[in-house]
Amino acid sequence: MDNSTGRLEQLRRAMQGAGVDALWVSYPANVRALTGFTSPDDGKVLVTPDTATLYTDSRYTVQAREESGLPQHIARPPETFKHAAEHLKGKRVGFEADHLTVAGLEDLKEYWPDAELVALRGMIQGLRQIKTEDEIAAIRAAQDLADQVFGEVRPLMVAGARERDIALEIEMRLRKAGAGNAFDIIVASGPRGAMPHGHASARVIEDGDLITVDMGAYLNGYNSDMTRTVAVGTPSDEMRRVYNAVLEAEEAAIAAVKPGVRAADLDKIARDILTGHGLGEAFAHSLGHGVGLEVHEGPGLRGTSEDVLAAGMVITIEPGAYLPDVGGVRIEDLLLVTEDGYEVLSHSPKETV
Amino acid sequence: MDNSTGRLEQLRRAMQGAGVDALWVSYPANVRALTGFTSPDDGKVLVTPDTATLYTDSRYTVQAREESGLPQHIARPPETFKHAAEHLKGKRVGFEADHLTVAGLEDLKEYWPDAELVALRGMIQGLRQIKTEDEIAAIRAAQDLADQVFGEVRPLMVAGARERDIALEIEMRLRKAGAGNAFDIIVASGPRGAMPHGHASARVIEDGDLITVDMGAYLNGYNSDMTRTVAVGTPSDEMRRVYNAVLEAEEAAIAAVKPGVRAADLDKIARDILTGHGLGEAFAHSLGHGVGLEVHEGPGLRGTSEDVLAAGMVITIEPGAYLPDVGGVRIEDLLLVTEDGYEVLSHSPKETV
Repeated sequence: MDNSTGRLEQLRRAMQGAGVDALWVSYPANVRALTGFTSPDDGKVLVTPDTATLYTDSRYTVQAREESGLPQHIARPPETFKHAAEHLKGKRVGFEADHLTVAGLEDLKEYWPDAELVALRGMIQGLRQIKTEDEIAAIRAAQDLADQVFGEVRPLMVAGARERDIALEIEMRLRKAGAGNAFDIIVASGPRGAMPHGHASARVIEDGDLITVDMGAYLNGYNSDMTRTVAVGTPSDEMRRVYNAVLEAEEAAIAAVKPGVRAADLDKIARDILTGHGLGEAFAHSLGHGVGLEVHEGPGLRGTSEDVLAAGMVITIEPGAYLPDVGGVRIEDLLLVTEDGYEVLSHSPKETV
Repeated sequence: MDNSTGRLEQLRRAMQGAGVDALWVSYPANVRALTGFTSPDDGKVLVTPDTATLYTDSRYTVQAREESGLPQHIARPPETFKHAAEHLKGKRVGFEADHLTVAGLEDLKEYWPDAELVALRGMIQGLRQIKTEDEIAAIRAAQDLADQVFGEVRPLMVAGARERDIALEIEMRLRKAGAGNAFDIIVASGPRGAMPHGHASARVIEDGDLITVDMGAYLNGYNSDMTRTVAVGTPSDEMRRVYNAVLEAEEAAIAAVKPGVRAADLDKIARDILTGHGLGEAFAHSLGHGVGLEVHEGPGLRGTSEDVLAAGMVITIEPGAYLPDVGGVRIEDLLLVTEDGYEVLSHSPKETV
């Protein structure tokens, strides 16, 4: 999919605002977001007010032409840099300070002695927050697959099963479908549920456990992200109370999602509800994040965030509560922000406990 | 495992040579190589002539103490930087230019205004080429597991099987043993064998195919790497000739491995043999590389390498020959360079075709 036209125009306006004549893009997710080109290891873009050129090497000539509408120049570094240098004399050239290493910058300075290099942070990441139609379709497909696999594996989440075998079964099914894990699957049962990022272990699940399963599919370069907490038999009264408090907080935050809402306010809605249940301290992370080419990207849904929701964002809402040595709960949905509210992309049922 | 004592002393000599009073280490594999600490996301080391301090946050207090003998300071950035700043006034402080981003350097400059920051490349990577006894044991264990899994899955490499199912079976067995893939498994059969990095596809294996299987185990933080090319039925005379030429080149290069040998000369031994068989052009990559905390690390075994073998290095020897649209062969062993020669760590049999 080629998102180049709209994003490039937005990027050129942002470049003007930042006072640069050109932008050198080398971070793979940003290259893909601008060009559609999926090379894992050699793709760069030089953007100027009039041109945008995709640089890659001869291994990727055909692939780059199929995936991107941009003009290509086929070369390997340092020839790549030498070719680009022709366009950069006397120019202010922005680069991705969040991603380019110091050694990488030294290389650019060596090959572009007549350019003034300007460190920029987060410029393309900002544009990536608003998904294109093609991107939304890709994320939707990843989440649909995740829902299907979760449903298939749910019957295996029973007393006697090992956490690790559940995670492996999920991953196998994703892989057989041509996808992969968006991240290491979390399967945290019983007391291990108190670890927000408890990766699947050799623990054997017991009757009365809650199990937190946090999983995502990585399909055609895009990610999904969803968490369900499920019950095995009848959990303790205390953990049932925690589950219902988290569910209440999650549903209230979801109901408030629409363009113009501040991310920090969404976080507060969920946090206030959990605080009302005496679980404010137990909600030891932020409410959510954007999802796309990377499983964690902007906007940030946390108390200190300056981000404001806009149509086309894909976000998670994922409050949780964690009681050390006792257990934990997290419930997470994946949402598309629409013109007049939201659409929940994750369809796996939430259980009544 | 804690390698801190010997490596730290070597590092201090290297720091003296580079004229720095301190070194700030943040690249995870380098942190682990110096401290034994395995945090994936928050571990840094400040090394001075007299001290070495491990910085991590409170999630890792216990783990850091168990894994590393170094004194710890528990803090999150930017408190980490502020604490380190106390020791750095008026000092020349080296950092890892190959890994630190420009934004990361800007942070250090902000918090350490009284230090002079010095970009260094490859200093710790160089030390990592010589493995400790514990590291050799870890790599040996990873390779032993890879050999076992290869032997178990070899009977599935038959006509009618899909490449992807073979790769998945290998990975599943690694995972069940608590390991993972060192890299995406390559299973390239028939004409796909002409792609040196042909990841497993949906292609169905046919009678008469050669199949190149390149796999590694990632176990306890260390990697292994091995390639076998196996025959299904009777390959063509042409591909049998290619197989035997690559095997001859591989065995000759292995026989020459010992301390003091130039990596470039090893590459030449294999390349000359393949050239003698008319396959010089078909050997389109370098002979091998070091293996350890990263699956590709120093030394580099290629024609332009300045590296010289030394006892304690772990390297691959992996010549190949690739005929577009016809097929390919690669044979790769994992070797430990010993005081008087070498030990082959990979034990999977090489077939006669």
